[in-house]
Amino acid sequence: MTTLLLAVPLAWAPLWTTPLSEIAPDLQLRVQGRDQFDPASVDYVLSFRPQPGFLKTLPRLKAVFSLGAGVDGFLADPDYPKAVPLVRFVDRTLSREMAQYVVMHTLIHHRQQRFFDQAQKDAKWRQTIPPRRTEDTRIGILGLGEIGTLAGERLRDLDFPVAGWSQTKKNVKGIESFAGAAELNAFLARTDILVCLLPLTDGTRGILNKKLFAALPADAFVINVARGGHLIESDLIAALDSGHLSGATLDVFQTEPLPEDNPLWKHPKVTVTPHVGAISDPRVAAQYVHDRIVRNERGEKLDNVVDFERGY
Amino acid sequence: MTTLLLAVPLAWAPLWTTPLSEIAPDLQLRVQGRDQFDPASVDYVLSFRPQPGFLKTLPRLKAVFSLGAGVDGFLADPDYPKAVPLVRFVDRTLSREMAQYVVMHTLIHHRQQRFFDQAQKDAKWRQTIPPRRTEDTRIGILGLGEIGTLAGERLRDLDFPVAGWSQTKKNVKGIESFAGAAELNAFLARTDILVCLLPLTDGTRGILNKKLFAALPADAFVINVARGGHLIESDLIAALDSGHLSGATLDVFQTEPLPEDNPLWKHPKVTVTPHVGAISDPRVAAQYVHDRIVRNERGEKLDNVVDFERGY
Repeated sequence: MTTLLLAVPLAWAPLWTTPLSEIAPDLQLRVQGRDQFDPASVDYVLSFRPQPGFLKTLPRLKAVFSLGAGVDGFLADPDYPKAVPLVRFVDRTLSREMAQYVVMHTLIHHRQQRFFDQAQKDAKWRQTIPPRRTEDTRIGILGLGEIGTLAGERLRDLDFPVAGWSQTKKNVKGIESFAGAAELNAFLARTDILVCLLPLTDGTRGILNKKLFAALPADAFVINVARGGHLIESDLIAALDSGHLSGATLDVFQTEPLPEDNPLWKHPKVTVTPHVGAISDPRVAAQYVHDRIVRNERGEKLDNVVDFERGY
Repeated sequence: MTTLLLAVPLAWAPLWTTPLSEIAPDLQLRVQGRDQFDPASVDYVLSFRPQPGFLKTLPRLKAVFSLGAGVDGFLADPDYPKAVPLVRFVDRTLSREMAQYVVMHTLIHHRQQRFFDQAQKDAKWRQTIPPRRTEDTRIGILGLGEIGTLAGERLRDLDFPVAGWSQTKKNVKGIESFAGAAELNAFLARTDILVCLLPLTDGTRGILNKKLFAALPADAFVINVARGGHLIESDLIAALDSGHLSGATLDVFQTEPLPEDNPLWKHPKVTVTPHVGAISDPRVAAQYVHDRIVRNERGEKLDNVVDFERGY
């Protein structure tokens, strides 16, 4: 019988074992830290941030599945057995959740909802016209993959001018494409609201830094919904406090949970959310993993396999 | 020379006279309350809520233009000279502003942003999964005209199931259409987030009342961005306090500005915004009015003319 090992924090396990038992009764399911298992019996692993060195102890491993869209938790393992395909979770519901988050926080900023929240607290009727028209509010999406493209399309459909920056040129209707290091500054110079949806790789770690912020126009706004490792938090605070940036919405942090004494919690120009941009739906993910195990066992090719050179 | 009279509160006048002078230098512009004018010289009026009885004093009046999408401010005048066409402001930028507002407040509710706002205030990392999946969160739009359709399409594209209710059946891709009084209850029974975008007419005044709220499923949420006259405020507060409704976002009120002692300001389940769902862009509106005056002077037919029987 084909064996799938679930390697996640034990508190999360029930969320995943329930749909997996329903959707994949043909698999033998083992939970790391709960069940006994022979390492030589494990065919597949479903995980998010496995202990470094663990995956290489599984001699029969045929593929590894990521619980989320980002795979930096696997690439951080120097002993990851690179002959074993690593499959990203690419799913419309996940991309759509992230697009909702990006659209909501773009609008909260653009439509001055924080100003109206304060007016309500004060029980004051304070009408104001948005300082910038929608047509003049340029969205820039760092990372124009499945998720970045969907978020960009939804904002484009609300009449924002949208551009994306990625490693290679993309062709998405109504979205201007900038590619590679040579075009980063031109992309930043035309961006009023910057949304980071990049994969975390050696090339993108710390990309949201003081040099990048300085290349944005005055009053630009930053949304980071990718990984905490993209952002130099102290550089962001400096750019907000100098008045160059008008604000930021952050869903991911260097240290998660964000420590109570981190100044971002109380910064008047920052919205903090607790890494909820998009949570994989366990039922959808269980179906995704099961479909691919069935196909792989039949000898068919796996899709959404990570390119280790590229890092995503 | 053709004369256009601007009849708005004097404080608003400069917002409109500047673009009108630029875009319509061929018109003689007069401002009610600021300029002297002969009533018999007025060809056109641009207004929002004219004094009852005033329009009938203008013997040469050829058409009246509304500054906004709603025309209840004109229909409230029992002496409105009904032989004179009343033209609504129908414009993509106005519809788009309203769609943004509806999308933003739908997402703030659906994605529990108020819960995360409170968690940030407490500097607490409180992760939670949305209680209802997007696929199971049914949006219902009361009023499926230009604005309601655009808002519905934008929510449909974020994977919400969307239905609309209107006087006559509508055919919009991916949006279920309910029509007339006979289908109102079926529409309400399948609606988790109700958005009111109706015109205010004798048939819709007070439609958001206790009977309607009772026909919504438990935990439904209400967004009113149409007119304060649609809502019985005390019925809403009762339905929130009984726990039947989970919350409401209101942009319009019985009395505007909303008085400081109105309990809606401080209600923990209510978001109040000061009638900012969509503000007509004066440049766009000036162009719209000028285009139509030129066409009318040429003897061409006016569009977006109000049907006084229907009330919009």
